[in-house]
Amino acid sequence: MTAARVFSWPVRVYYQHTDAGAVVYHGRYLDFMEAARAEMLRSLGFDVGELVRRERVAFTVHTLQITYHKPARLGDALTVTTRCVETRKVRLVLDQQVRRDAETLAEARLTLACIDALESRPIAIPDVIREAFEALQEGT
Amino acid sequence: MTAARVFSWPVRVYYQHTDAGAVVYHGRYLDFMEAARAEMLRSLGFDVGELVRRERVAFTVHTLQITYHKPARLGDALTVTTRCVETRKVRLVLDQQVRRDAETLAEARLTLACIDALESRPIAIPDVIREAFEALQEGT
Amino acid sequence: MTAARVFSWPVRVYYQHTDAGAVVYHGRYLDFMEAARAEMLRSLGFDVGELVRRERVAFTVHTLQITYHKPARLGDALTVTTRCVETRKVRLVLDQQVRRDAETLAEARLTLACIDALESRPIAIPDVIREAFEALQEGT
Amino acid sequence: MTAARVFSWPVRVYYQHTDAGAVVYHGRYLDFMEAARAEMLRSLGFDVGELVRRERVAFTVHTLQITYHKPARLGDALTVTTRCVETRKVRLVLDQQVRRDAETLAEARLTLACIDALESRPIAIPDVIREAFEALQEGT
Repeated sequence: MTAARVFSWPVRVYYQHTDAGAVVYHGRYLDFMEAARAEMLRSLGFDVGELVRRERVAFTVHTLQITYHKPARLGDALTVTTRCVETRKVRLVLDQQVRRDAETLAEARLTLACIDALESRPIAIPDVIREAFEALQEGT
Repeated sequence: MTAARVFSWPVRVYYQHTDAGAVVYHGRYLDFMEAARAEMLRSLGFDVGELVRRERVAFTVHTLQITYHKPARLGDALTVTTRCVETRKVRLVLDQQVRRDAETLAEARLTLACIDALESRPIAIPDVIREAFEALQEGT
Repeated sequence: MTAARVFSWPVRVYYQHTDAGAVVYHGRYLDFMEAARAEMLRSLGFDVGELVRRERVAFTVHTLQITYHKPARLGDALTVTTRCVETRKVRLVLDQQVRRDAETLAEARLTLACIDALESRPIAIPDVIREAFEALQEGT
Repeated sequence: MTAARVFSWPVRVYYQHTDAGAVVYHGRYLDFMEAARAEMLRSLGFDVGELVRRERVAFTVHTLQITYHKPARLGDALTVTTRCVETRKVRLVLDQQVRRDAETLAEARLTLACIDALESRPIAIPDVIREAFEALQEGT
């Protein structure tokens, strides 16, 4: 028995991520987490652009809970970790954390829904993607 | 006895808010809600810029839960409603909704912490602001 | 004979527009100008969302020159002015300024191309829009 | 005699960079170029965060000219090239291009001013930075 595998993705803080409080604006963490999810998909063999254009498949955020513990600052090297905690027919549940070295700066749980990208209606996650996420979830 | 007063703020969807799914990108709702909070403060007599520069006072998002029900699209006229549900010494709890006419597109609960803007540490909400929020909370 | 009419649109600076330099991030001026162009179109009777969805018509920025004179800050009330300086078959040339009271903070010249929104190729500006811009250009 | 050295930095297009036209929003190219400049500085031994916090030194965009040739799309792997074309006492002139493989999608020229980060007034570029840029400019 193994723990769920964690996908790690590095991000660097630039001026466009910060605000007048001299820290990263709270909304930018959602961008960091979006980038990490796109790269997790890429690591599984799926490109978000081709999924939309060729397969009409997209994942949209349905619910998101985030807690901000400590601020990130300009120039920081951050790591976003992503862990798949549940795979259902239409939805995925992911845990994502934004870290700086050993510190957890923010942690989030998201529910994503798979949709038909043209009609914006829920569809079953394609088998090949669902199986890749299930494999991630179970660990290797 | 009256219900808590609701502050409403209109926002319009421009290209910068949308993404390749032809809907508003999930992170932009946080910007719409931030704008609505700044304008609610302004309606109470406080400017976010002067609070930081003159009083070293800022409010940062500590926790945020958001559910996305329906997508907003380019050109939409939206309304952000903000309701103060709890006022404590250092924290505020707010409910915010993003609506299009009678439809609720997204709804969120946020906990905000009052901080010293230079040192990024929690401070008591200044009395004059806390009292304005308490008045809002109780209704008129 | 009169000067070209100027369309003015107010914007307010929120946290999401600022950066760690405690001023508005240089890229956000493009968002302010985009909002002002959308509202100028609306003032002429055209909604950017409906133009894309019903007519497949969009305007994209082809060239942009901008000079930043003074920084805008959190909480500032700004005005974006937009003036149409040239109307051609496929392109428009606009001058836009971002002002705070009497001060010009930034000034830009943009060339916009009209495109078929699905195929991203240049098309003639629809007559009804071109005529509205020409009327603007000539003044009242 | 050698040509000026070019610094290359890869960026990937995620949902937050795109707009309802299914291409990268024109303002996001400024973010890609900002990231590339920060990384060019890092490659020379300077971190934008530490420059501000320890040395009170920042570089702000004074003028920017950009031409958009072809759109970038969701999922694209882009490269931003940066070349220093002139180093003066207070200002730098840079050429930046955003490329996808052999195609130039956008090309820009920027003038950056060195400022005191607390007082937002122009200062001489610190010698150690100016010399690093001059070395870049002359090539190796």
